[in-house]
Amino acid sequence: MAAMPQPSATDQTLNALRDKARILRIHSLVTTTRAGSGHPTTCLSAADIVSALFFHAMRFDPARPDAPDADRFVLSKGHAAPLLYAAQAEAGVYPLGRLSTLRQFSSELEGHPTPLIPGVDAATGSLGQGLSVGAGMALSAKRLEKNAVRVYVLLGDGEMAEGNVWEAAAFAAHYSLDNLTAIVDVNALGQSERTMYRHDAESHRRRFEAAGWDAVAIDGHDMAAIVRAIDRARGPELTRSGRPQAILARTEKGHGVSFLADKDGWHGKPVPQADLPRALAELAPVPSEPPADTRSRARATGGAPADFPPLAPPDYALGFQIATREAYGKALARLAAVSPRIVAVDADVKNSTFSEYLEKAHADRFFQGYIAEQNMVSVGVGLAARGYTPFVASFACFLSRAYDQVRMAAISRSHIKLCGSHCGVSIGEDGPSQMGLEDLAMFRAIPGAAVLYPSDGMSADRLTESLARLPGIGYIRTTRPKTPTLYGASEKFPIPGFKVLRQSPQDRVTIIAAGITLHEALKAHAELAAQGVAARVIDLYCVKPIDAEGLAKEVRAAGARVVTVEDHFAEGGLGEAVLAALATSGVSLAAARRLAVAGVPHSGTADELLDAFGISAKHIAAAVKSIL
Amino acid sequence: MAAMPQPSATDQTLNALRDKARILRIHSLVTTTRAGSGHPTTCLSAADIVSALFFHAMRFDPARPDAPDADRFVLSKGHAAPLLYAAQAEAGVYPLGRLSTLRQFSSELEGHPTPLIPGVDAATGSLGQGLSVGAGMALSAKRLEKNAVRVYVLLGDGEMAEGNVWEAAAFAAHYSLDNLTAIVDVNALGQSERTMYRHDAESHRRRFEAAGWDAVAIDGHDMAAIVRAIDRARGPELTRSGRPQAILARTEKGHGVSFLADKDGWHGKPVPQADLPRALAELAPVPSEPPADTRSRARATGGAPADFPPLAPPDYALGFQIATREAYGKALARLAAVSPRIVAVDADVKNSTFSEYLEKAHADRFFQGYIAEQNMVSVGVGLAARGYTPFVASFACFLSRAYDQVRMAAISRSHIKLCGSHCGVSIGEDGPSQMGLEDLAMFRAIPGAAVLYPSDGMSADRLTESLARLPGIGYIRTTRPKTPTLYGASEKFPIPGFKVLRQSPQDRVTIIAAGITLHEALKAHAELAAQGVAARVIDLYCVKPIDAEGLAKEVRAAGARVVTVEDHFAEGGLGEAVLAALATSGVSLAAARRLAVAGVPHSGTADELLDAFGISAKHIAAAVKSIL
Repeated sequence: MAAMPQPSATDQTLNALRDKARILRIHSLVTTTRAGSGHPTTCLSAADIVSALFFHAMRFDPARPDAPDADRFVLSKGHAAPLLYAAQAEAGVYPLGRLSTLRQFSSELEGHPTPLIPGVDAATGSLGQGLSVGAGMALSAKRLEKNAVRVYVLLGDGEMAEGNVWEAAAFAAHYSLDNLTAIVDVNALGQSERTMYRHDAESHRRRFEAAGWDAVAIDGHDMAAIVRAIDRARGPELTRSGRPQAILARTEKGHGVSFLADKDGWHGKPVPQADLPRALAELAPVPSEPPADTRSRARATGGAPADFPPLAPPDYALGFQIATREAYGKALARLAAVSPRIVAVDADVKNSTFSEYLEKAHADRFFQGYIAEQNMVSVGVGLAARGYTPFVASFACFLSRAYDQVRMAAISRSHIKLCGSHCGVSIGEDGPSQMGLEDLAMFRAIPGAAVLYPSDGMSADRLTESLARLPGIGYIRTTRPKTPTLYGASEKFPIPGFKVLRQSPQDRVTIIAAGITLHEALKAHAELAAQGVAARVIDLYCVKPIDAEGLAKEVRAAGARVVTVEDHFAEGGLGEAVLAALATSGVSLAAARRLAVAGVPHSGTADELLDAFGISAKHIAAAVKSIL
Repeated sequence: MAAMPQPSATDQTLNALRDKARILRIHSLVTTTRAGSGHPTTCLSAADIVSALFFHAMRFDPARPDAPDADRFVLSKGHAAPLLYAAQAEAGVYPLGRLSTLRQFSSELEGHPTPLIPGVDAATGSLGQGLSVGAGMALSAKRLEKNAVRVYVLLGDGEMAEGNVWEAAAFAAHYSLDNLTAIVDVNALGQSERTMYRHDAESHRRRFEAAGWDAVAIDGHDMAAIVRAIDRARGPELTRSGRPQAILARTEKGHGVSFLADKDGWHGKPVPQADLPRALAELAPVPSEPPADTRSRARATGGAPADFPPLAPPDYALGFQIATREAYGKALARLAAVSPRIVAVDADVKNSTFSEYLEKAHADRFFQGYIAEQNMVSVGVGLAARGYTPFVASFACFLSRAYDQVRMAAISRSHIKLCGSHCGVSIGEDGPSQMGLEDLAMFRAIPGAAVLYPSDGMSADRLTESLARLPGIGYIRTTRPKTPTLYGASEKFPIPGFKVLRQSPQDRVTIIAAGITLHEALKAHAELAAQGVAARVIDLYCVKPIDAEGLAKEVRAAGARVVTVEDHFAEGGLGEAVLAALATSGVSLAAARRLAVAGVPHSGTADELLDAFGISAKHIAAAVKSIL
C-alpha cells in the first residue's frame, strides 16, 4: 500500500496490519454469508498474509493497480476470492460497498477472481496454475521489461499436490526469478479431508529448497514473522541472489473464529446468518456497514495483441515443398523482427515445431519451457498479462497436457497463441502417442478461440501473421510432412474464411478439407474429373470462426452434397464443424459423408496410415461416388 | 530373468549383464537403422540399466510375462522402445527375428510401446506418465492384491520437468509404496538441447528425497553400481520401509559408440546405413542376424471389466429430487458391494462427486488422490492394468487437467471409468473456472469412449452400472443441482440409445437434450403444448456412441426440424453430435437450431445463468417457434 512503504516494521505498523487482517476476516465472513455461498474459512487462514502483502509489502497505487510499475499479486488459491476483494476494497481499488455484490450476476466480483477486476492478471480457481502465471510475469519483468516489479503468489497447501506447481518451481529457479515470492497458506485442510502433508510446512519447505528456492517456514498468524519473511525478499540475502523466495506459512483454516478454526466440514460453506453474530463477536469491533455500491468497475478485457506493420509475404513459389510447421517457424521469426512484443515459449521440441527460428534470430525473446506443457501455457498467460504476444508451441497432442491451463487462459481473456505441430496420422512411424487427433475438438471448445489449419507454406505464413494480430486466444495446427505451395504471394486469408480451389458449374458435390487431407482432396478431384465427376474442393483454413453462410452458398451451388475429410477424430473436428454450420444455416443436405480417423491409430508410413484410416484420395473419391 | 535369480551378483553375473547390455545396444542400432526412424541414442544410454532389470532384478516367466505374480516394467521414456523390445526378445518373450519388424504397420512393435505387446501394461510416449501408472500397479499389488509383485519404472531426465512425475512421487510416498522403484536415465540431453539439470543427478536425487523417497545417485554405466542399487530394493534397508526407491543414474546418450556419445543433434535419428558398420564395430562382436519373424504376438486388448450380477434398481420414486452426482455415488457404493473389483480414486472432491459413498462402505477400495488429476487418471490406468475397474472422479472441468492422460489411457486400451461432476453453468455462483463446458467435446474425441449424460437419479444409477460393465474407457457427466426422477425402476437404458419422453403424431419438431437442459426442454414442451405447438422431446442420455438411425427416424417423423440444447459449449457437444449424425444418416433437415453456452460464463444463480446463456425453457420454446 502506498501509505505504508517502510521496509522494516515498527510495532505500530504490525498492530495496524493485525487490525487490517481482522477487518479482512470480517469482510470475508459478512460477504459470503450474504451471498449464501463461498469459502470464508480459507480466507480466514490467509488474512494475516494478505494484510501484510497489501498493506506493507506491495508497491502499487490503488487508483492504478494495473500500472506498469505496480507490484503484482496472484491469488492461486482462487476460492479465497472474498479475501482478495476485501483487501482491494480496503486498499481503495474500489469502494467498500462494492463487496456486497459478491457472486451476483451483475458484479465483477465473481466466485473466483478473473481479470474483469482491476489488479487481477489471470483467472484462478483451477488450482495449481497461479505460480506459473506469476513466473511468467516475473520473467517478463526481469528479462523483457527489466524493471523492479515484484510478483507475489499466494497458494493453498492443497494445490501443492498439483504437478503444475512443481513445473513452475523448477522453471522459476532455472530462470533465476528472484523477483518472485510464493507464499503457501498451509492450513492443512482440503475440501474433503486433511491435506496430504497436513501441517508439515517443513515438508513443503524441503521440496522448494530442493527445487532451488530460498524457503522458510513460519507461523502464518504471527504478523512479525510474516513481515520479516516478506521483507527478506528485498533485503541483501535475496536481492540479485537468483533465487525465488518461498514462505511456508502454517495457519489454521477458519482462524479467528473458535467454532470454525481448524474444524472439518466447513470448506466452501458460509457461516449461516444465525451464527454470524457469534462469529463477528470474536472479531469485534465490527466496522459499520458501508453504503452499497453496485457500480461495476469491471475492466475492458480482450487484451491488445502486438501491433506492427504488415509483413511482406515469403518467397515460396507455387509447388515449392515446405512443411507448414516450418513455414510457421519462419513466419514467427519474421514477426519477431518487426514486433518487439512477439515472444516464444517451447517445450523442448523447438526443432520440431520450428520455434527455433525465432530463437536463432532473437534469443532474448525465446524461453525454453522444457517438457512441462502446463507451466508453458500459464507462463504464456503471465507474459501476455504484461503486454507481450506469446506463441507457445509443442506437438498438438501434448497441448492436451495443458488443456485446463488453456481453458483458464480463456477465462483470463488472455491473448496467448498456441501452435500444435505433428497433427494427425500423417506423422507416421512414431505412432499414436505422438499424433494430435483431438486438438481441433479441444481448441474449438475454447470460447472465443480462433482455430486455424493451413495446408501450405504460404497460408501457414499468412495465418501466423493473422494470429499475432487477433485478440484473444488463437490456435494454429501444423503438419509434419512437406506439402506443395498452393497459393501465391498476393493471396489473402480472411478470418473467418475459406478458399474454393476447384469449381465448375457442373459440380455435384463439395469436398471440404484442410491440411494434409486437402492435398488428398485435390488428388481425388483429379481422379474424379478423369471419370467425369465434377466436384468442388474447399480449403477450410479457418475452422473457427467458421464462415457458415459462405459455405452454405458453395454447398447449395454444388448439389447440397458434401464430403468432409480430416486427419483428426470425427468428434469435434472439421467435419462436425461444417455439418453443424450447414444445418444451422438452413442447408437441407441431399447427402453427407464425414471421413475422419476412427479408433486408435498405429505406426506406419504416412501414406499407409492415410489410406488405412480412410482419409486418402482413394477414400475421398469413393465417398463422393457413394453419394451421387 | 528366470535364469538369474540370485540376489547378489557375482563377477560372472556382472559380466553376463554387461554383455547383454552390449547386445541390447546392437539391436537398438540395427533395428532403428532398418526402420529408418526411431531413437537409438536414448536406448544406448539406458541399456545397462535395462540389462540389469530384465536379466537380474525382475522376476517373471518370459513365456507368461503377464502372469499375476510377474514383476512389472514401465518404460516411461517410451521413445526408448527399441531397447525394451530388444530386452523382451532377448529374454524370450518373442523371437529375436521379430525385432526386424520395428515400426512397420503390420507389427505390434510400434514407435512407442503399447499394451498390444505382451508384458506392456500401458502405452507410453507422452512423457511423465509412467511413474503414475507404476504407482497405480504398485498400489494394487500392495493394498489390493497383497502380493510380492515389484514395479520398476524407467524415466528419462527430460521428463522430470513434467509435473505429473512429482504428483506421482508424492502419491507413492504417501501410500508407502516400497514395492516401487523409479530409475532415472540422466543422460542430460533432451530433444532440442541439454536438459534443465544436465548431468546434475544430485538435483533430481534431492527432489525425490524431499518427496519422501529413498534416493541414490549412481553411474548408470557401472554395472556393479546398478545391480547394487537395484538389489537394495529387496534388501533389509527398504523392505517394509514404506519408502519407494529412486535411482538417479548418470549416463551418456549414445553411450558405447564414440560418434554418438553425449553428442548433440542425434535425438530421434537412426544411424545412417552407411555409418552403421562403424558404430557396430565399437560394439563388436555382432551376433548373427536371426531369421525374420513376422508373426505378430499381439495381445488381444480391450480389457475385461468387472463382472457381477445385475444390481437391483434404487427406490427413487417418480418426481423424487436427487442430483445425478449423488445418484452416481450411491450406485458406485452398491456396485462395490457386489463386485470386489470396483475401486475409486478421487481428487479431494469426494464430497462433491459423491465418491465418498464408496469410501464410507469400502474404505479399502477408495484412494484419495488429492488435488492431482493427472496422477489420479494414470494411477487409474495402473489399477485397471491389474484387473480392477477404477472409477476416477473430479469436477468435469478439472478432468481437462488430465486430458493427455485420458488420451494415453485410450491408446493403452484401458478400461478406466471417469466421472465429471458439476457440469455446465448450472453450478451457479462458483463461476466459470468451476464449470465443465468442454468435457463432452473432450471425451467424445477419445477413441472408443462411451459418453453418458444422465438427467435423473434413476438413469444416473442405471448408467453407472452400465459403465462398470462396458469394456474400454467410459465417461459419465453429472449435474450439481437436484433434478426430479423421470424414470421408473423397470426402465432400461441401452447403449447406444435415447428416450422419447414426449411425442404425438402431430409433432412438428424434435427437441433433443440431456441433463439439466432436458428438464428445461420438458418445461418448454408444456409451454408449447399450451400454445398448440406439438414437439417431440428426446433424452439423449448416451451421447456416444450415438444411435444415429434411431434419432433419424424420430426426427423425420416430426417434420425434420430439430432443436438441440445443452449446458456445454456448442463445439463438440451434444448438438454437433446430433447434427452430424443426422447429416450422415441422410436426414435432409428442414431446419435446425443448436442452443448451447457461448462465450465465457459468469457467477450467478443457476436459473439466472441458464437463462442468460440461452439454454432455458424460454429460449427453447423461442427456438422451436423460430423454425416452424
